[in-house]
Amino acid sequence: MNDSVFDYSRLYRNGLPDPAPKWAPFPKYYFIGGNNDPEQIPIEGLIDAAASVLRREGSKLAIYNLGLGPQGYPGLRQFVADKSKKHRGINLPIDDVLITTGSGQGLDMISNMLINPGDTILAEEYCYQGALNRFRKLGAKIEGMKLDADGIVIDALSSQLADLKSRGITPKFIYTIPTIQNPTASILPLDRRHALLRLAREYNVCIFEDECYADLIWDGIEAPPALYALDPECVLHIGSFSKCLAPALRLGYLFAPWEQMKRLLPLKGDSGTGALDQMVVAEYFSKTFDTHVNHLNGVLREKLRVMTEAVEREFGASAECWTPKGGIFLWIKLPESVDVRKLIKPAAEAGLVFNEGPAWAVSADNSFNSLRLCFAMPDHQTIRDGVATLAQVCYEQTGIPIRSGNVQRA
Amino acid sequence: MNDSVFDYSRLYRNGLPDPAPKWAPFPKYYFIGGNNDPEQIPIEGLIDAAASVLRREGSKLAIYNLGLGPQGYPGLRQFVADKSKKHRGINLPIDDVLITTGSGQGLDMISNMLINPGDTILAEEYCYQGALNRFRKLGAKIEGMKLDADGIVIDALSSQLADLKSRGITPKFIYTIPTIQNPTASILPLDRRHALLRLAREYNVCIFEDECYADLIWDGIEAPPALYALDPECVLHIGSFSKCLAPALRLGYLFAPWEQMKRLLPLKGDSGTGALDQMVVAEYFSKTFDTHVNHLNGVLREKLRVMTEAVEREFGASAECWTPKGGIFLWIKLPESVDVRKLIKPAAEAGLVFNEGPAWAVSADNSFNSLRLCFAMPDHQTIRDGVATLAQVCYEQTGIPIRSGNVQRA
Repeated sequence: MNDSVFDYSRLYRNGLPDPAPKWAPFPKYYFIGGNNDPEQIPIEGLIDAAASVLRREGSKLAIYNLGLGPQGYPGLRQFVADKSKKHRGINLPIDDVLITTGSGQGLDMISNMLINPGDTILAEEYCYQGALNRFRKLGAKIEGMKLDADGIVIDALSSQLADLKSRGITPKFIYTIPTIQNPTASILPLDRRHALLRLAREYNVCIFEDECYADLIWDGIEAPPALYALDPECVLHIGSFSKCLAPALRLGYLFAPWEQMKRLLPLKGDSGTGALDQMVVAEYFSKTFDTHVNHLNGVLREKLRVMTEAVEREFGASAECWTPKGGIFLWIKLPESVDVRKLIKPAAEAGLVFNEGPAWAVSADNSFNSLRLCFAMPDHQTIRDGVATLAQVCYEQTGIPIRSGNVQRA
Repeated sequence: MNDSVFDYSRLYRNGLPDPAPKWAPFPKYYFIGGNNDPEQIPIEGLIDAAASVLRREGSKLAIYNLGLGPQGYPGLRQFVADKSKKHRGINLPIDDVLITTGSGQGLDMISNMLINPGDTILAEEYCYQGALNRFRKLGAKIEGMKLDADGIVIDALSSQLADLKSRGITPKFIYTIPTIQNPTASILPLDRRHALLRLAREYNVCIFEDECYADLIWDGIEAPPALYALDPECVLHIGSFSKCLAPALRLGYLFAPWEQMKRLLPLKGDSGTGALDQMVVAEYFSKTFDTHVNHLNGVLREKLRVMTEAVEREFGASAECWTPKGGIFLWIKLPESVDVRKLIKPAAEAGLVFNEGPAWAVSADNSFNSLRLCFAMPDHQTIRDGVATLAQVCYEQTGIPIRSGNVQRA
């Protein structure tokens, strides 16, 4: 009987995504992905935290959600509330905090709550690919919001909303990363935050605030309060432990008043976020968050310095870097004669991957000559060598940049 | 500006699920949910495992999927492959193993790969609610397969498939829990397994094998090899660490040949399963699985004995229990004059929750007088008192059972 051919192709549903490729180990110069510095994982701190929290509460692992409900381990919700009060100006009860399985789950849940196919939503013109992909998958039409060095340009947004309204279009939400914008790493000033919230109320457009990177701000730079701190009634807020601690843990959070929380909870659908991760992180960070993050930010800023110097050395005047106020990535604009999509294949052959601008933008029209380089994972020498490799590939494909340091390229 | 009312009702998408209720602590007699015995969580073992695996590999937490690809921590995939070879007769490379965020994610992924709205699928007439709900949500029509004390009745299934074919209907898959069926806790004999696989090939119907409870089998009872062991080409297989260790961890697994695995991977969508949970469980179970599970099964069997005795004592001839060969639940049939749905509210008022038959069945027609009681979490006295409470509630509502022990009820 087993000789007959069993035919799965008759069983697959319509519209299945393309098959996954076999996984391959990372290339040498891996400048993509929200990875962190492996040397900054606080191994002994996590071991101590695991021992202490498991001895105190480990028996609860026998019960779904630790027997404490679907919003997450209360110790972690309390930590998130405390940290958000201290650092982001947010006052909220832990009943308005949901622990999510990564901030990606928060993105999925909020998108799923608000988007009908054909709906219009607004996103920053340069924007996190994972968010854009999710919105598109649900059939949203995305309008880009103009950015400058400080984030959303309010006058442009105001005209855009008026124009949409004149065409009978009410956007569902404005997706924004106001604090360490991805990929430009800017911080939206307070006056723009207030103006943005006024527009949200005027047009009844929800603000979807993504603060994934807001813990990673360089020493001496102040971020204004979160949008959620200023007007929680029209803001839904997500954050993450991936960037301040470890992305392999899959821990994020979502803030919403109960009226929205109760609509979001049925969309979680995973029977709870992994409890050991939640318990260990709560136990560790309740004592060490500021120390850990301050140290991490120093390490990251130094890596950014190494990368920026390498870009200046290798690309000279051909590369225009946005100035990061924190985070783990550098957004670089090359001359308009360079289409970075044509560099993907030769770069891969040289062992280098980067994020091409069009994947990190609402439109390719103003992003084809931009790229994003992540700097948290590679060490200093890999950053230097990788940027040199990228410049060499770019030169071979486009004739740009013509000089490396002060030396003419071969 | 903040005085204006912000109106979310204009923003919600169509067809949003009903809002969640506020979470409330468990009632005294909590006989639902796949929870485990809190006293059997191996706390010191998990602490040691966390310390050892974090010291060896903790720095990898800085990287999504530990930098090792989307199928999960190789140490855990190797453990799952080894255990499945030893206990379930399955020979498979770790490339055919995917670690999932609970077996619920495996259910979601396989359903999402195969179901178009309107498709027919087959499920055991009494069946896990979480699976039925997922299939229905995707628009599947579910046909029930007749069960007896040994699981699927093959002759009935054979006629059913022929009948469906005569009506031009090819079911997409047969969802089955052949080893400790949920809720009847039966084990499908080997000859029926072979016959089921022959039918799958004859009709080109995929077998979706759920082995969530297959680790929990009473000492002295032998389970035949998994369906996946007998014919992996037409079987997709899921399993879980929720039942043999801890449901709050959110760890399950999925077996599929690469041809199907590559179609499933793009449907995972969570950027990886929590890595700390994976690492700790791999480290702990690689040394202790058999010892842990043997002990756990002894504890569970004793709890089942306490529950079965209580049901006999309190319900007498009014209750017909299916005989579990393992697992954590007891499926009970009451006389046809009892509709268990009418007991839900008065039971809740007495501090008791149970799974009503219609939620655990394809049709209410043959399940309205059945119920499922889970026994792993409550202690012996709670089991005894809870069953007595249930009998009292049932008597007050229906006049059945008339006797408790040998005493006429008041």
